[in-house]
Amino acid sequence: MNNKLNEQANGVCIISATPFTDNGELDLVSTDTLTDFYLQQGVSGITILGMMGEASKLTEEESLLFMRRVLARVKGRVPVVVGVSHASHQHVKRLSDSAMEAGAAGVMLAPIPNLKTDEQISQYYLTLAEWLGRDVPICLQDFPQSTGVHTSVAVILRLIEALPQLVMLKHEDLPGLRKLSQVREQSAARGLRRISILVGNGGLFLPQEMRRGADGAMTGFAYPEMLVQVCALFQAGKPEAAEDLFDIYLPLLRHEFQFGIGLALRKETLRRRGVIRSATVRQPGPVLDGTDLRELGQLIARLELRLRDSEFGAVIS
Amino acid sequence: MNNKLNEQANGVCIISATPFTDNGELDLVSTDTLTDFYLQQGVSGITILGMMGEASKLTEEESLLFMRRVLARVKGRVPVVVGVSHASHQHVKRLSDSAMEAGAAGVMLAPIPNLKTDEQISQYYLTLAEWLGRDVPICLQDFPQSTGVHTSVAVILRLIEALPQLVMLKHEDLPGLRKLSQVREQSAARGLRRISILVGNGGLFLPQEMRRGADGAMTGFAYPEMLVQVCALFQAGKPEAAEDLFDIYLPLLRHEFQFGIGLALRKETLRRRGVIRSATVRQPGPVLDGTDLRELGQLIARLELRLRDSEFGAVIS
Amino acid sequence: MNNKLNEQANGVCIISATPFTDNGELDLVSTDTLTDFYLQQGVSGITILGMMGEASKLTEEESLLFMRRVLARVKGRVPVVVGVSHASHQHVKRLSDSAMEAGAAGVMLAPIPNLKTDEQISQYYLTLAEWLGRDVPICLQDFPQSTGVHTSVAVILRLIEALPQLVMLKHEDLPGLRKLSQVREQSAARGLRRISILVGNGGLFLPQEMRRGADGAMTGFAYPEMLVQVCALFQAGKPEAAEDLFDIYLPLLRHEFQFGIGLALRKETLRRRGVIRSATVRQPGPVLDGTDLRELGQLIARLELRLRDSEFGAVIS
Amino acid sequence: MNNKLNEQANGVCIISATPFTDNGELDLVSTDTLTDFYLQQGVSGITILGMMGEASKLTEEESLLFMRRVLARVKGRVPVVVGVSHASHQHVKRLSDSAMEAGAAGVMLAPIPNLKTDEQISQYYLTLAEWLGRDVPICLQDFPQSTGVHTSVAVILRLIEALPQLVMLKHEDLPGLRKLSQVREQSAARGLRRISILVGNGGLFLPQEMRRGADGAMTGFAYPEMLVQVCALFQAGKPEAAEDLFDIYLPLLRHEFQFGIGLALRKETLRRRGVIRSATVRQPGPVLDGTDLRELGQLIARLELRLRDSEFGAVIS
Repeated sequence: MNNKLNEQANGVCIISATPFTDNGELDLVSTDTLTDFYLQQGVSGITILGMMGEASKLTEEESLLFMRRVLARVKGRVPVVVGVSHASHQHVKRLSDSAMEAGAAGVMLAPIPNLKTDEQISQYYLTLAEWLGRDVPICLQDFPQSTGVHTSVAVILRLIEALPQLVMLKHEDLPGLRKLSQVREQSAARGLRRISILVGNGGLFLPQEMRRGADGAMTGFAYPEMLVQVCALFQAGKPEAAEDLFDIYLPLLRHEFQFGIGLALRKETLRRRGVIRSATVRQPGPVLDGTDLRELGQLIARLELRLRDSEFGAVIS
Repeated sequence: MNNKLNEQANGVCIISATPFTDNGELDLVSTDTLTDFYLQQGVSGITILGMMGEASKLTEEESLLFMRRVLARVKGRVPVVVGVSHASHQHVKRLSDSAMEAGAAGVMLAPIPNLKTDEQISQYYLTLAEWLGRDVPICLQDFPQSTGVHTSVAVILRLIEALPQLVMLKHEDLPGLRKLSQVREQSAARGLRRISILVGNGGLFLPQEMRRGADGAMTGFAYPEMLVQVCALFQAGKPEAAEDLFDIYLPLLRHEFQFGIGLALRKETLRRRGVIRSATVRQPGPVLDGTDLRELGQLIARLELRLRDSEFGAVIS
Repeated sequence: MNNKLNEQANGVCIISATPFTDNGELDLVSTDTLTDFYLQQGVSGITILGMMGEASKLTEEESLLFMRRVLARVKGRVPVVVGVSHASHQHVKRLSDSAMEAGAAGVMLAPIPNLKTDEQISQYYLTLAEWLGRDVPICLQDFPQSTGVHTSVAVILRLIEALPQLVMLKHEDLPGLRKLSQVREQSAARGLRRISILVGNGGLFLPQEMRRGADGAMTGFAYPEMLVQVCALFQAGKPEAAEDLFDIYLPLLRHEFQFGIGLALRKETLRRRGVIRSATVRQPGPVLDGTDLRELGQLIARLELRLRDSEFGAVIS
Repeated sequence: MNNKLNEQANGVCIISATPFTDNGELDLVSTDTLTDFYLQQGVSGITILGMMGEASKLTEEESLLFMRRVLARVKGRVPVVVGVSHASHQHVKRLSDSAMEAGAAGVMLAPIPNLKTDEQISQYYLTLAEWLGRDVPICLQDFPQSTGVHTSVAVILRLIEALPQLVMLKHEDLPGLRKLSQVREQSAARGLRRISILVGNGGLFLPQEMRRGADGAMTGFAYPEMLVQVCALFQAGKPEAAEDLFDIYLPLLRHEFQFGIGLALRKETLRRRGVIRSATVRQPGPVLDGTDLRELGQLIARLELRLRDSEFGAVIS
């Protein structure tokens, strides 16, 4: 894959957590180990400074520091996408420029919360694409549960047509299965470029989405190796095996899917796996109590048991 | 004006309250006096069973009873528009049929709450227009503060083009001044039918809206005579005089504009004016306390004082 | 179990669909077969006229007709809970009275959408409990994703204390696991009555909720037999077996969990199982397309395969 | 008034705009002239970096630069309150410390958007008050239309009781008249400290709020001299004269009240008054078109005419 994000992107572009120390400071050591972990699990890309990366709780200085640390660690082995969503166009532009200069492969952009109509949403992206310039590949993040913005199929198609730098859709409308099919079908019917579609929502519907035309996942589940293998199995034409594997992890994945506390569960799981040193989420944010920790432990134990009993056991652990 | 609502509608199509007795039963005697009052103030139409008519708190039987009572009292002197918004298409159809059979001039239809994209909103109206039939004139109610649905200019124009029976827009987006201008300008630029636009939001921006191309008001301010005169003065080419009159009532109008409690204030004002016997709002609903009542009294007293001192004093009281 | 709903309720109180014919009319024949089906699967109660029962799209007449049909079919074998949520207190009262007279075991009540503060929500239930009377057992439905109303633990405890007729909580806040634990712990710490807690959200977190103190489920998954057995296994002190069984159904359950289209998937599944004659959802509502139907078929086929291969195969099919 | 904000604050604490040049850079020259203007109009305080100050579109560096510039210009003549609302506790703390060190009189704090229950909202303020320390006077901003958070009377009273540093309420719930009365009455009934209450919402209900116990206004209407005089007249025991003056400005004030575009109208009015050099709002933000500008001009002309004809003419212009 070349340096820039493009329409051929597939597999797992993992949504990276942002590790903090116990007292809430950026943990750059864990940043390195986390980055190494993701690469070892076989991800084909890394997305940093997204919502689950607690981007809104970082200062601009911290964002740049973290971004440069990850890019230095990745050394171009996989593309790194940088979340640049912000209330101000100037900020989006500045962060995007910094990212691209530092070697990012592209930027991810969610709309600001108060956009309502098709026209407003289209204009938002058209305007920002002009601010950012044609050389900056854009991943459109469609996550209405968090932004409150409902980006229609018509808007997505219009933007694919108008913006050559729009190369990827992070699909996480919910429910969103039909929408994904419509984007693929209507795009093909109109002879538009086929862009990359990676799915979010913790991967809750990943197999169904792969069957409907997704190219992979862009989410942060604490067992990226499963996402990677599921995508690989789909690509190898083995959808049933992919879904069999997926189903083994589904109970835990569904648990981590919980909005809000899911981030704390994800970080705690990564900590237990030895990937980061602290599971701290910046305040205000979810804090796990004894019951939460026990419950997570039970679900992990059940997962390990099922994995061991499965045909995948050897492959995975 | 003929029996059916059409694109030429203008002036004040008053949003009628639904009078209840002190214990919350439909008050048909007050329904008659209220209807007479509206007609005496010179309204050019009456809209019943809208949101401010507490339609969602009436049984279907009560709705039909009230509707027939008003229609019988009006005797065709002005068009009566019936609100038919409902969660079920079947219900909309049934209520609309009943209304038209009973002599209504048309129906008012707001979208159900969960519509998000331009396509979804358009399809909602296109589908229902087919259910209702070409003979039923429709007033599209655009009131996002209450419905959560944002109907774009593009959607409005598409519906004007596709649906000959769409003859009126109740404009109450907020802020909505530019939207009103855009509907008028883009509609003209595309050579579409010029539909009637009546404005809501309690009339808070009536003069600015008339200057931008509105044809009148569809709201329920407890002093309809002001709305009627303001519209008449605009039609007579006297915008400054219209705005002078409007400004005298603005303090009270702004008070009644308050969402929720505004309905209780409106009914209490109508009660004080001798138009209905009880100011009761169906439960759960706002109930005025001593401070509210005193405050309303002060604002009414101030209005009367200013009216007396104004050039409009003689004309109005 | 006696005639009235009480705090000992447990197991599965199934949320009943409302069957329609292909053209959207109430299907009373399917109502009978559906009721029989639920009873055969071993549910310990039936809840009708809830949100998933499309209550807001029924006329009052239809609601009464359907309610009486179900009650007549059940013949007191299990308690029937009737959803009575409505914008008007008078309507809630009238429907509740009708239900109790016809032999319902209690009513389920969700708050109206515009309640915001703890005090407003408490007062809503306190007022309505007085309207309904002490003899009407109430199930409080806590479903903020649909109502927009966030009922705090403090409010729930206050209502348990103040209202002896509040005997059940339908817990479907999301994420809501900690909330469930807090209700149980704080209620016990304060020496309050232990009410029944049945969980919703399609059962997506049922095992975790059972471990945290839930008494069962009140949801409408199209395979009630699984819910029944999971609850029974928990009651028999076999949580791991319960969760093993649950996990087999989780892929399909998660699919049906999708808000909106989930109802269409549920009805279609019931239709395929021969329980109702038509999967029609009243308009406006979701309609499955070819891809949706194929996808559902695949998931059902996968479920059947996994069931056959499991230790539960014999027990269940 | 001493250096720190306290419960005796009254009159007008103007919400300052943040001036930008035509190309969107901070305009420090206009910052000086704007500050001078506010002081000349007799404000008793200045609030900077609030929502209408476009705080979310400034970098931290710009925020500090602007803050220091205003503080240097004010030279302690009136208290300066600094908005510090942010998604991260650390950021709130850091900005608050910087502000207090630079000579601010206190900080204004709105809740983060996802707080729902009384307990969550209380805990948010209790936690942050501890982070900030007892020496930092806090103004609680209650603005649910923008934050989505509904802070109940019970929560406000609880916080007044628990937090000596909570000295002021910026009241802008809407409708909010009864809430204001309840805070005053219940606070007195429970013998709590009487804190300062300044009202927002553009001042749309200022006279009614003063009659109900407000101490003044904290809003940014482009004619601060009116707000100052209205508050002074109320303090002088002349409520009717105060309201007479208010009513003259009401048509323009209501126009500026429009959410979103109101900020552009306010900045344009300040520009026309010669107070700032550019009316630029940072992108994405409202931009006035020809019709908007003409309309604003008409409303200003009408205001000037009415002022000239009034008894206030000489006093004001």
